[in-house]
Amino acid sequence: MAPPPEEVAVESISSYGVARSTVAGEPLNAEDLRKIDAYFRASMYLCLGMLYLRENPLLKQPLTKEHLKARLLGHWGSDAGQAFTWMHFNRLIKKYELDALFISGPGHGAPAILSQSYMEGVYSEVYPDKSEDEDGMKRFFKQFSFPGGIGSHATPETPGSIHEGGELGYSISHAFGSVFDHPNLISLTMVGDGEAETGPLATSWHTRISHTELEALFIGYGWTPYFVEGSDMPSMHQAMAATLENYRPEELFDKQGKLIPELKELAPVGNARMSANPVGNDFRKYALADIVPGVSNLPSMSNMAGFLRDIVAKNMTNFRVFGPDETESNKLGKVYEAGKKVWMGEYFEEDTDGGNLAMEGRVMEMLSEHTCEGWMEGYILSGRHGILNSYEPFIHVIDSMVNQHCKWIEKCLEVPWRVQTASLNILLTATVWRQDHNGFTHQDPGFLDVVANKSPEVVRIYLPPDGNCLLSVTAHCLSSVNYVNVIVADKQDHLQFLGMDEAIEHCTKGLGIWNWASNDQGEDPDVVMATCGDVPTHESLAATALLRELVPSLKVRFVNVVDLFKLIDHEDHPHGITDREWTAIFTDNRPVIFNFHSYPWLIHRLTYKRPGQKNIHVRGYKEKGNIDTPLELAIRNQTDRFTKIEAFENGIDPENIRKWVWPYSKTA
Amino acid sequence: MAPPPEEVAVESISSYGVARSTVAGEPLNAEDLRKIDAYFRASMYLCLGMLYLRENPLLKQPLTKEHLKARLLGHWGSDAGQAFTWMHFNRLIKKYELDALFISGPGHGAPAILSQSYMEGVYSEVYPDKSEDEDGMKRFFKQFSFPGGIGSHATPETPGSIHEGGELGYSISHAFGSVFDHPNLISLTMVGDGEAETGPLATSWHTRISHTELEALFIGYGWTPYFVEGSDMPSMHQAMAATLENYRPEELFDKQGKLIPELKELAPVGNARMSANPVGNDFRKYALADIVPGVSNLPSMSNMAGFLRDIVAKNMTNFRVFGPDETESNKLGKVYEAGKKVWMGEYFEEDTDGGNLAMEGRVMEMLSEHTCEGWMEGYILSGRHGILNSYEPFIHVIDSMVNQHCKWIEKCLEVPWRVQTASLNILLTATVWRQDHNGFTHQDPGFLDVVANKSPEVVRIYLPPDGNCLLSVTAHCLSSVNYVNVIVADKQDHLQFLGMDEAIEHCTKGLGIWNWASNDQGEDPDVVMATCGDVPTHESLAATALLRELVPSLKVRFVNVVDLFKLIDHEDHPHGITDREWTAIFTDNRPVIFNFHSYPWLIHRLTYKRPGQKNIHVRGYKEKGNIDTPLELAIRNQTDRFTKIEAFENGIDPENIRKWVWPYSKTA
Repeated sequence: MAPPPEEVAVESISSYGVARSTVAGEPLNAEDLRKIDAYFRASMYLCLGMLYLRENPLLKQPLTKEHLKARLLGHWGSDAGQAFTWMHFNRLIKKYELDALFISGPGHGAPAILSQSYMEGVYSEVYPDKSEDEDGMKRFFKQFSFPGGIGSHATPETPGSIHEGGELGYSISHAFGSVFDHPNLISLTMVGDGEAETGPLATSWHTRISHTELEALFIGYGWTPYFVEGSDMPSMHQAMAATLENYRPEELFDKQGKLIPELKELAPVGNARMSANPVGNDFRKYALADIVPGVSNLPSMSNMAGFLRDIVAKNMTNFRVFGPDETESNKLGKVYEAGKKVWMGEYFEEDTDGGNLAMEGRVMEMLSEHTCEGWMEGYILSGRHGILNSYEPFIHVIDSMVNQHCKWIEKCLEVPWRVQTASLNILLTATVWRQDHNGFTHQDPGFLDVVANKSPEVVRIYLPPDGNCLLSVTAHCLSSVNYVNVIVADKQDHLQFLGMDEAIEHCTKGLGIWNWASNDQGEDPDVVMATCGDVPTHESLAATALLRELVPSLKVRFVNVVDLFKLIDHEDHPHGITDREWTAIFTDNRPVIFNFHSYPWLIHRLTYKRPGQKNIHVRGYKEKGNIDTPLELAIRNQTDRFTKIEAFENGIDPENIRKWVWPYSKTA
Repeated sequence: MAPPPEEVAVESISSYGVARSTVAGEPLNAEDLRKIDAYFRASMYLCLGMLYLRENPLLKQPLTKEHLKARLLGHWGSDAGQAFTWMHFNRLIKKYELDALFISGPGHGAPAILSQSYMEGVYSEVYPDKSEDEDGMKRFFKQFSFPGGIGSHATPETPGSIHEGGELGYSISHAFGSVFDHPNLISLTMVGDGEAETGPLATSWHTRISHTELEALFIGYGWTPYFVEGSDMPSMHQAMAATLENYRPEELFDKQGKLIPELKELAPVGNARMSANPVGNDFRKYALADIVPGVSNLPSMSNMAGFLRDIVAKNMTNFRVFGPDETESNKLGKVYEAGKKVWMGEYFEEDTDGGNLAMEGRVMEMLSEHTCEGWMEGYILSGRHGILNSYEPFIHVIDSMVNQHCKWIEKCLEVPWRVQTASLNILLTATVWRQDHNGFTHQDPGFLDVVANKSPEVVRIYLPPDGNCLLSVTAHCLSSVNYVNVIVADKQDHLQFLGMDEAIEHCTKGLGIWNWASNDQGEDPDVVMATCGDVPTHESLAATALLRELVPSLKVRFVNVVDLFKLIDHEDHPHGITDREWTAIFTDNRPVIFNFHSYPWLIHRLTYKRPGQKNIHVRGYKEKGNIDTPLELAIRNQTDRFTKIEAFENGIDPENIRKWVWPYSKTA
């Protein structure tokens, strides 16, 4: 028996003065309804199949664990609405012979699009192996968000798509562009709730605006607009004075004009703003202990979150954590134990978010890197402290804002009466090397190039190789002033290398030889294996271990760089080292195989004119990616352990290895 | 006699269900009114003084031309509203002892802030030479937006400012950040109309949203929202079907479902989309003729605009010009002769914009780089052509969008059934070297670094040195497919160097020796003067002329690079040259003094491992800037003609010059 129908709202907004559109009650007869519901269920079944199944596509056998994908990707929640909209529009396309395009805004909602395309037959026409039969369906299911397959957005491989939606924000403007000069084209566009919070999307609604709409817009934004308009000055002054009186300050201030006690006690005591350095407590106590270098596999990021949590707890009026809805995903969820997520709106039962919402919370989230960055800039420039955590690829969204903040603080250094402000700390994770599920759109480590263009006086970049280094670097950044600090760190479980004391020493130096991974003690090395970044360090250590096992006579020196600007000449950046220091670490005549987190040419640029510079061979991300496993991605970009010892392809011959690592040296 | 008072609107929006606030009619008595009006006039006088006067601050002498600034900068239009708001809030600050901060959003509106600060005495306290007397006022006026002085935004030098506003978009989020955990602080914030169109600003209004507000928001955006809500599937299907019927297609389509003729004729004929290449006409006829190299001073950009105008005229259904409200400022106004600016809203008398507005226009403007870029992406991905013109510094606003488009077209190259689409063409002007009035925030050529990180298959960067090269490069870009093309060119009058045929030959090669500027014919040069970018070419030619005049025996070779990726090895980019070609142009053992438009290290990165690479000395923008004249800016960054011959500081001694240009060569 069907449940009683719930109330269905279908109405325009007559209360705002827009003509009410009368909706014809039931355009579908019973047979239409039966068919369209079945069509919907078919589409939803295909979506589920893509998300879950690698075998047994029609569930002809009893479902077993082996039929399921090991890793579940794609968003179920953004599928139903899209499929529903698409198929209902299909009815109109047929009825009126329309020319229509679908633009899919919600993230990771490709199953909806793919299922509709498959049901329409287009998918099988374009990809004959994804045929409309059981075998084809199996392949169709398996390829979804699977290594070597297709992404979870409407990627270029998706028939009919002109909009991937991997980075949120562009669906409405793309839709507008597609219909300009296409008067017979309808671009049916879905906007997800996350996308609706982004700056590019928010502004793309604005095509024209009347006074009436302007009023409604501000009410929509949650504000009460007052209009003071005219050109007669006396009445304008009266009007402005009267309007400002409207704030009803008598409810907030007492007769003497003081803030009422209830509000007053929310304020920090005294002139406590800058003096209350948030890093009062010792980060050493959060150390990952008993590390076995290269063996211990522990979560660097969630460990550091314990440190952040206690900073929040001790600084409840002058420290906040900012981020575009990724704090939990970025493994920083522990901070909620001290300060919840700020929520100022209505509460519904389903909105409690695990009990993590509170008006007086400390974690500021909105799916707009712009707004998070802007909040944090305003917060620190007015005397407080904070950290922004964000996915690495999408920090490019605020390249320009960060540029401008760098320029601001550089000029402040020249203004003697300006007080110092806390550094702007940006923690980047969900890095390029761990985007096996999100794919190519989520692979972009180029923010470091943007930052490196700014003045050496104001920018700092740190790539801690493991958990204790991440702690040390974070503590340093939070206690610094007048910088933009960028920290790049993997959020997954990761190999650990250094104990706490070693990590502090290493991070304080900014770079150094790891003797425990080297075998050149007291001698000139045959080759220097240099690294910067946690995942590249992991791969290079593996390559070093292989080299040392296979060619014990080869003298390998292992170098790790935490503080990127150590590589620059000391005359060009305050953190830079001298050529003499450089030579002591990297030599001036040995091949340096440098494995880097970001685009490789950044290292070439930073090491320009260093002694032996022509012997530096850098591997890094070269814009080669897809739905790849981490190792596949490393191989595509030649940062993997095997490429590093590619000479072995010719047989395990020590002379071959010498030849490979030695081609540029004087004694070759 | 005072004019009759006009109507003054002071009201809340009762029609939207928000409680109406009753405004007390006239809070100011006659004496208050007199004083506050005088205070306002004083503030406005100071604003005018900053904009216009360098002498005679109190107009004690009759005003002469000599008293006026030669170049008028700052925006009068954004001053009055800000001063008005500031001073009226002052009344409340005094009355209720409030703690308030002013955040100035409108661009170039610093005079309002500065005048208020000066009237409050703070400015003179901080800068005693800007004292509250005639001499102080004169200095106060003169420094405004003047070389060596202060900028036209609320720069760090401005007392009380935490928000410069040089790049629009961040005032609301900065204001929010400043009041978090400052319960007694009021951040009084002004948002300009331009800023209100940006993505970052649009999204920063969103702090919370209720269902009622959501309805109002969409009406405010200019849309009519329909809500289809529920969980009972049959009624949901009925509702969705009924809602879609609301589009009343019967008014747009005839009974057979065909578009009505009135609309149909707006469409391009047949499958004309990609086949109608917009560059059907010969760009040669727009040539700047009778060029005297290095002498003719002509406007490259507005000349090219004639070419663009005729492309628009011949492609009225498949070509558009996009830009963030800068088409006229960027000297492309000629395109309005063919296609006006698109305007879909209400028309007022004052909105005609010189008669350049039309619903069926071809120029798409909105002060949101995001929306312009999104429009253009949607437009070209659906089979049409276009060009985006933008200020160079703020193209960083859409770094991430361009990144994502590069990734999209790269993947499309791997999808065999995808047709080719027109290239995404970005024309950057208002460049770093011509920002004497806008200052430091408007100096950022780093977009090239972001683009250069993308795959060589999809990105192209051109820096035409003069007007005919700009024509040649633009024609090439507009007829290309599947690329992101970036063109960087000055919009001011500029020295011209090449005739049309020479320009075509030079741009086709992408780089080459300019024999007319060299004196090494048939011999090895002593030094190679290399350039990339129009302003740097100008400066290096001047340095070359000085060198040749002062040291005739010195053999100078002059090289210009138009196509930046020519510098890369041919194995790394399809435009790259071989080492042999490289050596024929740059030599492998002579000093190369390379003057570059952007950050210098990009050249080092591109020329990594080229023969003689260690002899390349690159000058470019090094993030050193302020309110500088072009020559001052060049000197600060050592790209000027004089730095290039700095040996002359020791006297005009040919041996000194040889020593300077020759320090690294083998025969030094």
